[in-house]
Amino acid sequence: MKTLLVIGIGAGNPDYITMQAVKALNRADVFFLMDKGQSKDKLIDFRREICERYITDHAYRFVEAHSPERERGDVDYKASVDDLNLAKQQTFERLINEEMSDGQCGGFLVWGDPALYDSTVRILQAILASGRCEFEFEVIPGITSVQALAAQHKVPLNRIGRSIEITTGRRLAAGQVSDADSLVVMLDAEDSYHQVADQETEIYWGAYLGTPDEILISGKLKDVADEIERVRKAARLANGWIMDTYLLRKP
Amino acid sequence: MKTLLVIGIGAGNPDYITMQAVKALNRADVFFLMDKGQSKDKLIDFRREICERYITDHAYRFVEAHSPERERGDVDYKASVDDLNLAKQQTFERLINEEMSDGQCGGFLVWGDPALYDSTVRILQAILASGRCEFEFEVIPGITSVQALAAQHKVPLNRIGRSIEITTGRRLAAGQVSDADSLVVMLDAEDSYHQVADQETEIYWGAYLGTPDEILISGKLKDVADEIERVRKAARLANGWIMDTYLLRKP
Repeated sequence: MKTLLVIGIGAGNPDYITMQAVKALNRADVFFLMDKGQSKDKLIDFRREICERYITDHAYRFVEAHSPERERGDVDYKASVDDLNLAKQQTFERLINEEMSDGQCGGFLVWGDPALYDSTVRILQAILASGRCEFEFEVIPGITSVQALAAQHKVPLNRIGRSIEITTGRRLAAGQVSDADSLVVMLDAEDSYHQVADQETEIYWGAYLGTPDEILISGKLKDVADEIERVRKAARLANGWIMDTYLLRKP
Repeated sequence: MKTLLVIGIGAGNPDYITMQAVKALNRADVFFLMDKGQSKDKLIDFRREICERYITDHAYRFVEAHSPERERGDVDYKASVDDLNLAKQQTFERLINEEMSDGQCGGFLVWGDPALYDSTVRILQAILASGRCEFEFEVIPGITSVQALAAQHKVPLNRIGRSIEITTGRRLAAGQVSDADSLVVMLDAEDSYHQVADQETEIYWGAYLGTPDEILISGKLKDVADEIERVRKAARLANGWIMDTYLLRKP
């Protein structure tokens, strides 16, 4: 039997790694690196650094795979994601079949936590359900950028006894959000916080959280929304990529 | 200046601790233990175990404080929580003033992550705002029971491109939830999953997550809701306390 470990490595700070993740890193014979796009080099370097730092006396190798990219532009979002996941599934099957022998252990190093806006667990479940590969797998949670955001701003995510919605920039821009008084927005490429009607809403924004490049801005939307847009644009230009997250809290 | 560290120690598994938390543990001169209620002894033991395991060559001490309890029964929930937090604030002020000298570092060991349904950060911010104590503080995120739940069931928390609501059993029972297709319920003492109308909803339930006593049950509500209630009742009786969490996913 082959074993796959889906390891949450946390978001940005190498110290966010858990003891459980360190133990998992030390079990893997091979790590599959799947990053894509502009942030590729930096995020792959981060994974290599994590392995160098935490793996002791144990031989391992990396296999870089071209990660399929989602078709963008004027296409149906759900359909393009489904196509993407099918392509990813085929890539994963090939890696498991060709790069691992029986009894070996393979690791996927997932940014943040594998349970939150990451497709690895879903894809592995789909492969198992298809019956085309056999393996066991384990999931190791990691600190997400949402948690890094709250910690760095020193704020709780929820109000007392209230709920939190975690959603995407796409849904916020489309008005597809509930009336939760704490809203965490991820994957926002379009400055969707400008769509929030109540300008008294407080925003806690963070980019490159946990890294030396971290930027934090907080305040009422009416006071800081334009500043965030300006800082975000400049940082993206300077670094070639950006990863950011924010919490919106109703007045 | 005094420094306070609000350290997320993860939920249940000592291996959930992060490197950042280990470094923080090794900075503190004194740890404040604030637990209450039936789960007290087990949770305090867990904190002592974490310190013994991860603190190296560094003297530290524990101060146990009686943690005020919320008035229960026929009282206004919000008001009783406000009263509780005021009492906690006074307790924290006393600890900081009486148990720490200038230049010392104090640690609060928070179950899970300090940003999620925990009052420590809110209380420290309130004390700073009141001006009655001066200190610096840092927040160290930790793995929550929500993340442990998803990892142990090997499921993502969100559907592709969709949102997640994290809420309380109290709000679910009162019907105060949005129509998010992924709903995470914490702090449910009343088996509120029985209130969900659509019996095709899938539930991923876990108790004592990450510990040797962990129990996992998943399936459609129509198939497993009664089993969860039965198992939950028996486990609570056997252990004297229970901590459980679940994910509800619409069909």
